[in-house]
Amino acid sequence: MSSSSAAPGRGDKAEKTTMRDALVAAAFRLFLERGYEQTTVDDIVALAGVGRRSFFRYFPSKEDVVFPDHERCLADMTGFLAAGTDDDEPVRRVCDAARLVLRMYAENPTFSVQRYRLTKRVPGLRAYELSVVWRYERALAEYLRGRFTGLRDGILRADVIAAAVVAAHNNALRSWLRSDGRDDAEAAVDHALGHVQSTFGATPVPPAGGEGSEDVVVVVARRGAPLWRVVQELESTLGRG
Amino acid sequence: MSSSSAAPGRGDKAEKTTMRDALVAAAFRLFLERGYEQTTVDDIVALAGVGRRSFFRYFPSKEDVVFPDHERCLADMTGFLAAGTDDDEPVRRVCDAARLVLRMYAENPTFSVQRYRLTKRVPGLRAYELSVVWRYERALAEYLRGRFTGLRDGILRADVIAAAVVAAHNNALRSWLRSDGRDDAEAAVDHALGHVQSTFGATPVPPAGGEGSEDVVVVVARRGAPLWRVVQELESTLGRG
Repeated sequence: MSSSSAAPGRGDKAEKTTMRDALVAAAFRLFLERGYEQTTVDDIVALAGVGRRSFFRYFPSKEDVVFPDHERCLADMTGFLAAGTDDDEPVRRVCDAARLVLRMYAENPTFSVQRYRLTKRVPGLRAYELSVVWRYERALAEYLRGRFTGLRDGILRADVIAAAVVAAHNNALRSWLRSDGRDDAEAAVDHALGHVQSTFGATPVPPAGGEGSEDVVVVVARRGAPLWRVVQELESTLGRG
Repeated sequence: MSSSSAAPGRGDKAEKTTMRDALVAAAFRLFLERGYEQTTVDDIVALAGVGRRSFFRYFPSKEDVVFPDHERCLADMTGFLAAGTDDDEPVRRVCDAARLVLRMYAENPTFSVQRYRLTKRVPGLRAYELSVVWRYERALAEYLRGRFTGLRDGILRADVIAAAVVAAHNNALRSWLRSDGRDDAEAAVDHALGHVQSTFGATPVPPAGGEGSEDVVVVVARRGAPLWRVVQELESTLGRG
């Protein structure tokens, strides 16, 4: 199963324009024209032609309208992780879960790039985004903590790997956003998460050769060599096998 | 040079009580008695016996009085990283930089534990803390990006390692805070950061044996073995040498 087909939530989004979408569109038009701080919820509902209570039915605050899909994506991620089995390689599973977030951004490049520029300018939105990122990271860490039960330093390993996955994902996401959504988002995130999988988990692809998986690899290193150099060596031997 | 003597900022703090300290003490007394949200800046300055302008001379907002030492610590960290040389192993250097943060917490266990409980209860403070953590992580990542210039995937590696260091540090810090400051904070963070150094960087301690550093290590692994298992094997061979 390829990593992209392993993840749910793609292409099953109804494309019809709802009141919720209309509120998001009105909010972004005003944020870009007047600035975020200068736009009130009253301005947004006036432009969208709906009542103030309709806004708060969909969004607890003005900040939430900037990130309208994160709650759904967090729920998708939690569901995806919960649906895993003991046969799933844990690091690979959290990498696939992180791909759901990138896919949400890539579904709508124009909107994502606009929001990226807005968030960079507004400290309150930056803080909001950090709290969302934190929730994704906790979801990944909770899953890994469960999978690593009984493993030496299981909780520590889970927390470190979750943070590494989020950092790699965000590195790829930011590169894509800075390209104005022109680069290949999937390729960027595959590369970044492949790096994390090489460092912490199983190799990105199963070893080639079927029965050849019993091949033996011998690594010889000077005792004084830094571990990371040896790991690099191993990556090129095992990871690209 | 041991990792603790390599880091500045310890024991050189004047212990005299200043107006700033008095404001922090008054604020925390009120936060614990009445709750954070129910305490105003006016309440704090009244209890401390100073004017409102004195408060804002030291703290831009009520949130800042909860974390009075992070700006100093961030400056210490940036200075420490900038003072490094090309001979420093990069991962070890960022681990030592992270130790400065733990030391700030461990300098005043009672205050740190009180603040931990307060922060868990107040979402606004949690968000503030995340933004501070983000600034530490960026400082570490910027240093590593500089050190990894020219390295394949240097920026990606820098971001991932910085996130891993912060996650390991925070794992140890939270364990210590949950022990009400009774456990050995330094030992906890040494263990957690040792894990990160084993994963990404040079071994935690230089190989024993001096001239023996030319010893050769041979690791034999099945080709199908996940990389992390092979790395574990290497850790126990090289890392504990």
